[in-house]
Amino acid sequence: MAVGSFYLSVLALSALGVMCILFTVYWMQSWHGGFAWDGTISTFNYHPVLMVTGMVVLYSAASLVYRLPQSWVGPKLPWKIAHASLHLTAFILTVLGLVAVFKYHNNNKITNLYSLHSWLGITAVFLFACQWFLGFSVFLLPWASLWLRSLLKPVHVFFGTSILSLAIASVISGINEKLFFSLKNATRPYSSLPGEAVFANSTGLLVAIFGLLVLYILQASSWRRPEVGVMAEGQPLLHERE
Amino acid sequence: MAVGSFYLSVLALSALGVMCILFTVYWMQSWHGGFAWDGTISTFNYHPVLMVTGMVVLYSAASLVYRLPQSWVGPKLPWKIAHASLHLTAFILTVLGLVAVFKYHNNNKITNLYSLHSWLGITAVFLFACQWFLGFSVFLLPWASLWLRSLLKPVHVFFGTSILSLAIASVISGINEKLFFSLKNATRPYSSLPGEAVFANSTGLLVAIFGLLVLYILQASSWRRPEVGVMAEGQPLLHERE
Repeated sequence: MAVGSFYLSVLALSALGVMCILFTVYWMQSWHGGFAWDGTISTFNYHPVLMVTGMVVLYSAASLVYRLPQSWVGPKLPWKIAHASLHLTAFILTVLGLVAVFKYHNNNKITNLYSLHSWLGITAVFLFACQWFLGFSVFLLPWASLWLRSLLKPVHVFFGTSILSLAIASVISGINEKLFFSLKNATRPYSSLPGEAVFANSTGLLVAIFGLLVLYILQASSWRRPEVGVMAEGQPLLHERE
Repeated sequence: MAVGSFYLSVLALSALGVMCILFTVYWMQSWHGGFAWDGTISTFNYHPVLMVTGMVVLYSAASLVYRLPQSWVGPKLPWKIAHASLHLTAFILTVLGLVAVFKYHNNNKITNLYSLHSWLGITAVFLFACQWFLGFSVFLLPWASLWLRSLLKPVHVFFGTSILSLAIASVISGINEKLFFSLKNATRPYSSLPGEAVFANSTGLLVAIFGLLVLYILQASSWRRPEVGVMAEGQPLLHERE
């Protein structure tokens, strides 16, 4: 891949990720009264923002660390630490996102974990926790043998993309569910497509597009570290166009 | 991959796909009065069944045709025809699934295409139509040059998995939405997790698991046609274990 198009793609993807977060913040700020940690609906409002930020955007950034050509040469440990730290930050934001919705529900006597959205979301978070601890124990700590690492790497990669896919499906169903809740008794219901509906539907589509692009980059061979043989032959990581 | 585990995987995946369809039929039959093409809610009931069958299960089967080792040798045309025909059947079922929900909505003066579920779903169907016509024109009809085919193949593959991912997110958000509609005024609301809620949530999880496995197989190198060099060296497609 040419240097120019590589950096342009990174920039475009980052911009899209930031837009997903800003759109979610704007939705909660403009139509739902903003944020407060007091157990009211303003506490719930942290939930979508923290989930989109943690489980989608930061999770994606953490997963894409090994797609940076700079990570393909030199010592691997700093990149592993970056991968694990970014994922840990994503996980902390995700847990805060869960705390926000549980706090709001408990304060208002609303049942937890009954909808398909919540079942799927909690499955994604549970798998994320297992994945992080497995990754930390096997790939970052020095005790595991090369044999064990190469055995578990495909499992780690499979669950990595699966958790992101589940997170995206959870976000989509969550936005849909939230709109049915909040535009239920309004003078202009969801079905009349008021401003909030158009804006939040568009946010959902943005998250879907962002997720599909990340999943594409994760599996595309042109974004992967070249095979050892190719590297040994001295092929540059990125090649300049004339 | 050993012959035994290959056929076991195919069997397990097929069984899971069939279960997704049967669970959806059972849900609509047992809790929503079954099926009829009369514009009532019984017409709507075809919608989830046709979407799970067409856009998820049959679409997946059609996509996986080239993962059968039998397709890696001999003339490619019969496999292309199988790939295109299965996808066409999936597309027809999908369109019937759309007709079912539009017919029900129009008969009952319900607005079409306002929820995020519907926006995402209609985007998936639109992309599916474009994808099929592009695939048919470029890869099945004989006019396109090798250069054009190799240029468009990665695009075809990317949109192939993207459409399936969008379809799965649409199905998940659709099941979630349907449960909020149908368990709204019941004596036992969705939040009290009545039998229907547990059953339909589980159906959603089944569809998610099925989809993740299909997406894994589509990108895993162990399921792909080996590189030409490897084939020329006479490596068997599947190797027998002692």
